[in-house]
Amino acid sequence: MAETHFAPFQPPSRILLGPGPSGVSARVLSALAAPTIGHLDPQFLKLMDETQQMLRAVFRTGNRLTLAVSGTGSAGMEACVVNLIEPGDRMLVCVNGVFGGRMADVAARAGAVVRKLERPFGEVFSAAEIEAAIAEFKPKVTGIVHAETSTGALQPVPEISRVVHAGGSMLLLDCVTSLAGLPVEIDEWEVDAAYSGTQKCLSCPPGLSPVTFSDRAVAAMDARKTKVASWYLDMSMVRNYWSQQSRAYHHTAPINMNYGLHAALCEVLEEVLPKRFARHLRNHLALRAGVEALGLEYAVAEACRLPVLNAVKIPAGVNDQAVRAQLLGEYGIEIGAGLGPMAGKTWRVGLMGVSSSPTNVLVFLAALESCLNAQGGECRAGAGVAAANASYVASAKS
Amino acid sequence: MAETHFAPFQPPSRILLGPGPSGVSARVLSALAAPTIGHLDPQFLKLMDETQQMLRAVFRTGNRLTLAVSGTGSAGMEACVVNLIEPGDRMLVCVNGVFGGRMADVAARAGAVVRKLERPFGEVFSAAEIEAAIAEFKPKVTGIVHAETSTGALQPVPEISRVVHAGGSMLLLDCVTSLAGLPVEIDEWEVDAAYSGTQKCLSCPPGLSPVTFSDRAVAAMDARKTKVASWYLDMSMVRNYWSQQSRAYHHTAPINMNYGLHAALCEVLEEVLPKRFARHLRNHLALRAGVEALGLEYAVAEACRLPVLNAVKIPAGVNDQAVRAQLLGEYGIEIGAGLGPMAGKTWRVGLMGVSSSPTNVLVFLAALESCLNAQGGECRAGAGVAAANASYVASAKS
Repeated sequence: MAETHFAPFQPPSRILLGPGPSGVSARVLSALAAPTIGHLDPQFLKLMDETQQMLRAVFRTGNRLTLAVSGTGSAGMEACVVNLIEPGDRMLVCVNGVFGGRMADVAARAGAVVRKLERPFGEVFSAAEIEAAIAEFKPKVTGIVHAETSTGALQPVPEISRVVHAGGSMLLLDCVTSLAGLPVEIDEWEVDAAYSGTQKCLSCPPGLSPVTFSDRAVAAMDARKTKVASWYLDMSMVRNYWSQQSRAYHHTAPINMNYGLHAALCEVLEEVLPKRFARHLRNHLALRAGVEALGLEYAVAEACRLPVLNAVKIPAGVNDQAVRAQLLGEYGIEIGAGLGPMAGKTWRVGLMGVSSSPTNVLVFLAALESCLNAQGGECRAGAGVAAANASYVASAKS
Repeated sequence: MAETHFAPFQPPSRILLGPGPSGVSARVLSALAAPTIGHLDPQFLKLMDETQQMLRAVFRTGNRLTLAVSGTGSAGMEACVVNLIEPGDRMLVCVNGVFGGRMADVAARAGAVVRKLERPFGEVFSAAEIEAAIAEFKPKVTGIVHAETSTGALQPVPEISRVVHAGGSMLLLDCVTSLAGLPVEIDEWEVDAAYSGTQKCLSCPPGLSPVTFSDRAVAAMDARKTKVASWYLDMSMVRNYWSQQSRAYHHTAPINMNYGLHAALCEVLEEVLPKRFARHLRNHLALRAGVEALGLEYAVAEACRLPVLNAVKIPAGVNDQAVRAQLLGEYGIEIGAGLGPMAGKTWRVGLMGVSSSPTNVLVFLAALESCLNAQGGECRAGAGVAAANASYVASAKS
């Protein structure tokens, strides 16, 4: 019979610089460990109310229907799609990375007639091409990824939102990797539905997915003729549990994960969003100066480069796996491998939430230099660290 | 603008005697607060392997496909249904409470042709009536609830499993409230698919759902002609992430929740299952002696009464809400309200996992006496506590 008695799990010390999960503060970790209370306890309902208010502030929206889905980011994606789509509805999905591809898959499973508008991994879409596709296809919903975690590309949204609405479509935005790390303006951009994850720039462990729906989206959901395919993610019921008026039991919320999200949102809003975005940008610029000084190139054009997730090309002759293994084994540093067509060709270095710090940038550059030289590289001693430090000095002056 | 700055959440002190979540030990709570690591970190993959082995031990199965779904118990229910059912498949659902009803709803959304076999809330099914329904309806899957959390009824399984298989159907069992609190024998009973929740007798916070699938169920899933309706819950992909061979990324697992489940499973198996079941039974018998001494009656016949969830009738003239509010407000004790047709007529007193203790039984009986007397009751002073103590003495002798 297999062994069934194990020692208590002791996680190793890690610096999380991958595409998520990001590092989690001691405050958020200790919030997770507070005693569990009931999902209908008045004190827990108060926590849900406060969480909704803070989520609205972070999404920059007044949307009533704003809450945390009881699953990870992909559950949030599925929640948005299955509530907006009825079998036979048309959905246009913009695919320039793994997560756009996932959205198209989710939409097809929900019974949508899906059209994919594709761009190579690492590129972004123009409003003009989306406008043309909408004019031809006339989709009910247009889905696009704000920050493609698989490629490190940042998709500009405002102009696209204009053409989506002018074409009579609703806009669904994937904010998994952008929320709380760079500007996301749900109301100003007139986004109809958006989802995120807790384990990226919110710096909370994975397990919940913040979502928000505009009044237009809610009206579309209220006008459905068919039941939502997923019982678990059916917003017509989930929203009653989150509603101050009803509080109808739906499922047992992940209590302690919600403690963690509440604490993480407090931290985000105490830092104040513009300052948080500036911190992410400052550390990105220092990392960029450092990796370029070590001879690496970015995989994404400067104009659409994500500040929170740096996709850099693996230099010729360098063993992807060996470098990542050395970073993890010797320095406890996790970075991400490439995904899809970028597998083996890029590394993904995340600087999200708590993980976005000068300390992490400097130690990563120092460790990377050593790993590259172990692969026969000829990095000048300290070149990455020196360039990053110079970047910080320049940032402080500007 | 709405307030967006809140004080850190401090949960009140609670004794959780409702239908779940149950109390959580200090060991499990502190496991939740260990630093987050990556979902592809070799150390996290090791934790997943150990978790699978422990889940198999608790489910009493050798099923390879045994893992924790990244959502609460209802997500586990949906995972089982949507993976086994293709549109047009027939599913027989035995409904004698809220959760049987939920399973029927989930199955219909998955495109099943659903037949409900119904019994009044609080009763259980005979093998004969299920055999007859299967002979007539010929369902691909037959779903039934082992421990109906909404009514406190315990469904005997072995004979039903025999007729289900003799009729050419697969058996799906809801073990949300039974697993780790009373005998669940997946292999011996030849159950084809089962799901549970972490927040009941496993005494872990809500957020994950253990599931297990027999080889027959896996073969049926492998023979599907259509994609699973839910991307998030599609076992053909989820199982690759949990497989030692593949480890293909699917979604970001809820890392810290999995820390908690690992610790909770360690506790369950260190106690040893038969001893754990005996503890649950002993505390149930003491509670029963106590509430009967206070003049209350059970809502479920003795032959099919759940030891872990006691549904008792609210005496005539007693205000349901007032008693529960007093229990919570004065004593920090949470019990559950009735659900569905039992709302306002029963209380549900859970003694699950860590919450199943003599201390909790005694303090609950003492507090309940006071609350009932506040409602004009005439409980003899200390009658409940005395009866419970006598029950413990009798248990110790037997």
